[in-house]
Amino acid sequence: MKVIIDRDHLVRSVQDVMKAVSSRTTIPILTGIKIVASKQGVTLTGSDSDISIESFIPAEEEDRVIVDVITQGSVVLQARFFSEIVRKLPKETIEIEVKDKFVTTIRSGKTEFHLNGLDPEEYPRLPQIQEENMFKVPADLLKHVIRQTVFAVSTSETRPILTGVNWRIENNELMCTATDSHRLAMRKAKVETESEAYYNIVIPGKSLNELNKILEESNEPVHIVVTENQVLFKTKHLLFFSRLLDGNYPDTSRLIPTESQTDMIVKTKEFLQAIDRASLLAREGRNNVVRLSTLSDKVVEISSNSPEIGKVVEEVQCEQVEGEELKISFSAKYMMDALKALEGAEIKISFTGAMRPFVIRPLHDDSMLQLILPVRTY
Amino acid sequence: MKVIIDRDHLVRSVQDVMKAVSSRTTIPILTGIKIVASKQGVTLTGSDSDISIESFIPAEEEDRVIVDVITQGSVVLQARFFSEIVRKLPKETIEIEVKDKFVTTIRSGKTEFHLNGLDPEEYPRLPQIQEENMFKVPADLLKHVIRQTVFAVSTSETRPILTGVNWRIENNELMCTATDSHRLAMRKAKVETESEAYYNIVIPGKSLNELNKILEESNEPVHIVVTENQVLFKTKHLLFFSRLLDGNYPDTSRLIPTESQTDMIVKTKEFLQAIDRASLLAREGRNNVVRLSTLSDKVVEISSNSPEIGKVVEEVQCEQVEGEELKISFSAKYMMDALKALEGAEIKISFTGAMRPFVIRPLHDDSMLQLILPVRTY
Repeated sequence: MKVIIDRDHLVRSVQDVMKAVSSRTTIPILTGIKIVASKQGVTLTGSDSDISIESFIPAEEEDRVIVDVITQGSVVLQARFFSEIVRKLPKETIEIEVKDKFVTTIRSGKTEFHLNGLDPEEYPRLPQIQEENMFKVPADLLKHVIRQTVFAVSTSETRPILTGVNWRIENNELMCTATDSHRLAMRKAKVETESEAYYNIVIPGKSLNELNKILEESNEPVHIVVTENQVLFKTKHLLFFSRLLDGNYPDTSRLIPTESQTDMIVKTKEFLQAIDRASLLAREGRNNVVRLSTLSDKVVEISSNSPEIGKVVEEVQCEQVEGEELKISFSAKYMMDALKALEGAEIKISFTGAMRPFVIRPLHDDSMLQLILPVRTY
Repeated sequence: MKVIIDRDHLVRSVQDVMKAVSSRTTIPILTGIKIVASKQGVTLTGSDSDISIESFIPAEEEDRVIVDVITQGSVVLQARFFSEIVRKLPKETIEIEVKDKFVTTIRSGKTEFHLNGLDPEEYPRLPQIQEENMFKVPADLLKHVIRQTVFAVSTSETRPILTGVNWRIENNELMCTATDSHRLAMRKAKVETESEAYYNIVIPGKSLNELNKILEESNEPVHIVVTENQVLFKTKHLLFFSRLLDGNYPDTSRLIPTESQTDMIVKTKEFLQAIDRASLLAREGRNNVVRLSTLSDKVVEISSNSPEIGKVVEEVQCEQVEGEELKISFSAKYMMDALKALEGAEIKISFTGAMRPFVIRPLHDDSMLQLILPVRTY
């Protein structure tokens, strides 16, 4: 294999596939990046066996030569060194040549690296996915959907299924749900499907976090293909594979209350800042709990008390408060996560009593909701 | 004590004194910030007993009221909470009121914190320093002098005196020297003294690093007062005290070679980048060592070899090479530290053989030098 390649394109591709490479893998060859040069261009692959990322650098782009493939072939190079080397090379083009025993020469200007490569035949093959039942979501919408749900997955392995986000696709609608059994995040979005598709899958939270990092903010469609145990996200030059979680996701629809006893509308930012301040002292005490009480004249009081350090009391003027009086305690962290995930300058919070889960929604928007279980404090 | 104080001024002062507060202190009251309100304004103090920082907020500044002192007094508040609270308060002014048993109310808008304070009488007193024998250095020059020397102090406590930077003031010249016995950094600067002052002190590296962070880039003079075991740096509203290290600093002048066998002049940035690349592989191997060899035609070769990973060879075109041929090995890290510390687009490196320390200087500037001991590699 011998190629001459544009440095900036290579740096970007290496950065992308590096997101799948883990230094703590038990399979030594997965600490490497697989490089394949064909007539069409160069393909890089990184994988930690849960996530695999493939990035393609075309030989030509907009009539400009990006890769000059002199001899086709392939090699696996240590990801950590290869990525640092290409980033620091002095010139705009880089020559990569694989010689005897996979020893690889990387040349740029008057700099010459010789790296001990590995046999690409030993690199695990990526799943072959039939691209039949695919659906499309614009990249920026996909990033939103991920960010508004993934933070609520469980970090504990006691119920592994809850470490993923449940995706259900039905009637051209994607519904994403994440819960750690103390709070729940849900987001719906319209998707373009080719047929009457129905899926019900659970994608690991970690995979979605990496996907969110790698996707650019654009309205370019991302093609999504689902198989029995894999999901593939496909953009112009990138393939992102993730395994799916085994098992049935719990039915969460019955958790969401349909009625309410107390409803309030507040300015999102002002409310978030008040909770943030109240949590300054709460963090030290019992599990970061703050207390909310309705007062008269559409005012609610946010308070928190840590006997050793001190206490804080704060009044927030609501836009509207309707229904019964209420005193309720909840995790400040969950509330802040939920408020940051929602869109819109104003939000509506619907309570069904001090011991029942409550729901936070943007005003006039049913496509997303956040649910939080209160904390018993007496 | 009761004051109404401008939030932005308070936030900045708290940030400054926080640099001296350590959460790992064995003296509980030092986890707090001491606040003293007098007719003239409010003084904040933070200390970890090695470093103490005092910041003064004047009652008025440029005809604007900054602090309204309603009742004089003092209190000590937990630094960690107090600093976060003042940063997150909603309005531009903050009311601080100390009540019974040092319980302190902090009010801003509709937010009210009650913090358990501590008795300010228990807070250690700062050293009283006679401001007689002081000298002056502009803040930006002082920051340069610190950055160009402090990185070379020893991080090991086997010879505690080497964890500090030696400052010698004589004939209106300040000479700063730091060494960890493998490399040495020296910087001279003119200073303004009031009398025929002579000092020879050792300031802990950690203190100088904190001082560098707290000083703003400006040409305002910093007043420096030296006593037997303390040094005080004084700007308009800030006092920075550091203890001095006990013991005699070694005489380093005889380490610096006065003659040379090989001299080369190189472009600083190009040379730094070449060393950086060579060190990519060296880092894994024997102590980050790279090799430099003179070739013909004013070219030097930089190379490094890590048998398991690979090797790198790189040619650098020098502006000038004079004297004997040379092959020498040295720590890439020390060389990069030295090159980053020096000023100027071109530097001169003077070697006295492969086993002797060599000296790096900016071209046409004798006020600073870096010295590195080579590494034996055979």
